[in-house]
Amino acid sequence: MEDTTTLSVTKPIRCIVKLGGAAITCKNDLEKINEENVEIVSSQLREAMITGSSSRKVLGMDWSKRPGKSGISCDADDFEDQNLDSSSFVVVHGAGVGLQSDVHSLLVKICDADLLFLPSGSFGHFQASKSGVHKGGLNKPLVKAGFVATRISVTTLNLEIVRALAREGIPSIGMSPFSCGWTTSERNMASADLSMVAQAINSGFVPVLHGDAVLDDLQGCTILSGDVIIRHLAAYLKPEYVVFLTDVLGVYDRPPSEPNAVLLREIAVSEDGSWSVVKPTLEDMKKQVETTVAAHDTTGGMATKISEAALIAKLGIDVYIVKAATTHSSRALSGEVKGALPEDWLGTVIRFVGKGNRNC
Amino acid sequence: MEDTTTLSVTKPIRCIVKLGGAAITCKNDLEKINEENVEIVSSQLREAMITGSSSRKVLGMDWSKRPGKSGISCDADDFEDQNLDSSSFVVVHGAGVGLQSDVHSLLVKICDADLLFLPSGSFGHFQASKSGVHKGGLNKPLVKAGFVATRISVTTLNLEIVRALAREGIPSIGMSPFSCGWTTSERNMASADLSMVAQAINSGFVPVLHGDAVLDDLQGCTILSGDVIIRHLAAYLKPEYVVFLTDVLGVYDRPPSEPNAVLLREIAVSEDGSWSVVKPTLEDMKKQVETTVAAHDTTGGMATKISEAALIAKLGIDVYIVKAATTHSSRALSGEVKGALPEDWLGTVIRFVGKGNRNC
Repeated sequence: MEDTTTLSVTKPIRCIVKLGGAAITCKNDLEKINEENVEIVSSQLREAMITGSSSRKVLGMDWSKRPGKSGISCDADDFEDQNLDSSSFVVVHGAGVGLQSDVHSLLVKICDADLLFLPSGSFGHFQASKSGVHKGGLNKPLVKAGFVATRISVTTLNLEIVRALAREGIPSIGMSPFSCGWTTSERNMASADLSMVAQAINSGFVPVLHGDAVLDDLQGCTILSGDVIIRHLAAYLKPEYVVFLTDVLGVYDRPPSEPNAVLLREIAVSEDGSWSVVKPTLEDMKKQVETTVAAHDTTGGMATKISEAALIAKLGIDVYIVKAATTHSSRALSGEVKGALPEDWLGTVIRFVGKGNRNC
Repeated sequence: MEDTTTLSVTKPIRCIVKLGGAAITCKNDLEKINEENVEIVSSQLREAMITGSSSRKVLGMDWSKRPGKSGISCDADDFEDQNLDSSSFVVVHGAGVGLQSDVHSLLVKICDADLLFLPSGSFGHFQASKSGVHKGGLNKPLVKAGFVATRISVTTLNLEIVRALAREGIPSIGMSPFSCGWTTSERNMASADLSMVAQAINSGFVPVLHGDAVLDDLQGCTILSGDVIIRHLAAYLKPEYVVFLTDVLGVYDRPPSEPNAVLLREIAVSEDGSWSVVKPTLEDMKKQVETTVAAHDTTGGMATKISEAALIAKLGIDVYIVKAATTHSSRALSGEVKGALPEDWLGTVIRFVGKGNRNC
């Protein structure tokens, strides 16, 4: 399905990070970034990527004019003695273009090759839902206009995230799936050339991709979610681990706002793709979770997250779902919680157990 | 050199338009868009593209929140009876990342495959010149940071142009050459996959490309100018005509600010690539222009423009160089001045004469 002929990464990818829409935007506010969270997350990413960077002066790479300022401050000399060598990370952020009311039918239609995380974030959502971009039909003026409006909204968010990362000294490069030539066929990924992503990584950059409106062979257009992108990147780049940053501590057995909701700490995925809760060891936990799905998917979407994460875990890649901008996210990003989970780390890890090896 | 295997445009391209940096930004102001010009140019483009559009209500496609506003106004119903069919245009805008002080050496080094228009515009220039991105060397922290900063600046401009066009009801789609996978080899175009541009056109969109920082096989990175992009697009998409929008009326025989500067109205390009001024018929005009180049290229760059435009004209494609946001630009964009030039049209046309046919 993918064109991997030209794909070759010269050094291993350490981590693919999903910045969930709910974590980086103000969910109930139109096109508003959660500046504080984005700043903390960017700083945590810098510390995880660049060894010893926490004690150093941050050399920002966003030399654009800031609102209200007339000039740019950039001291070129400061860069001379800097070693910016960093381990390879890829960032993908949500676009928030999922459609709550439509999510069940979407999940049914798009089958397992295109499972969708639930809507979150405030960019792209209005534009996509107003026009029905995900349903296709570019011959309709409203859909075509909505496609244009959605891409404007999600690329605006992308630019802001790239700038926030660059301000923290992360060599971030925005890459839109649409421009990279990623297309779908009846909503399933049809082509996703990763060669440019690989080249950017090989040149020492951190690609920043995002959920996007893309062309579809059969229905004209659709929405490609950040989570589908993550899964494809994980399959072909084989990172050491994947971190999903969200706005709750991790995956719960029911919507986290409900009383008695229990944080699932560790989920094991077996060879046949089924999964079970290892920690906490509540009896029949898996069944409880499944039961919760039907009633609550539109309010939390965590069961969908498990299914999606399980597909990545099945590749032998540990997946951490953790609350953004906390000590827990910092520890997950740095890889500190690999292996035995520290008792004081709060989050959910989803791991492949298979037959005791990491290949499947 | 190009990967054209997957390139196929289903309907002919009418026009490729270059929005010169000098025309769309405030040249002497850091990262400031010339809002008035951009708005007029966008409106002229809409009228040229969409037949009968001047009498219709403009249905904007930028549904993003505007500064100071809390919501978005978009009346979905308005789109129902719209026929948005438009002839195919491609827009390329300058990035202003050329380097004045370095332009002569650049022109020498990059040979005829990579002729460079002179610097203009206020986006990307500071970032690129501060770090020397065009010279390559991504292993240097300053160059790597400058690459990131340059891309942030030029994609900021791209987003603003896309939004301005969308506000006028033009289905514009931003496409960064970097993300499209365009790379150079020792500053010459090495790969420029046009398939995604073609697909966007076939789906009824107007791709909006821009000068960009790109990866280079040999020197790590460089700057790919909007004009090199235009020439490649022209060679493979074969538009009916190409329009360069700039901040002076056209090409003069010397810097337009000088007394007695004469506007060159028509330039003929012959089969061997040489060119001569047909109108006005001043004796030895060509030699005068050439003499002017050495002394004044850094102040106006018009001779460089002629050489570049001549390469496009040699393909049998008329090139119009015209002042943005005037009646002259409107007439050039609409194709009204094709054929015999109206006496009251001010601008420069560069045409292939060859042996009386349009093939070369």
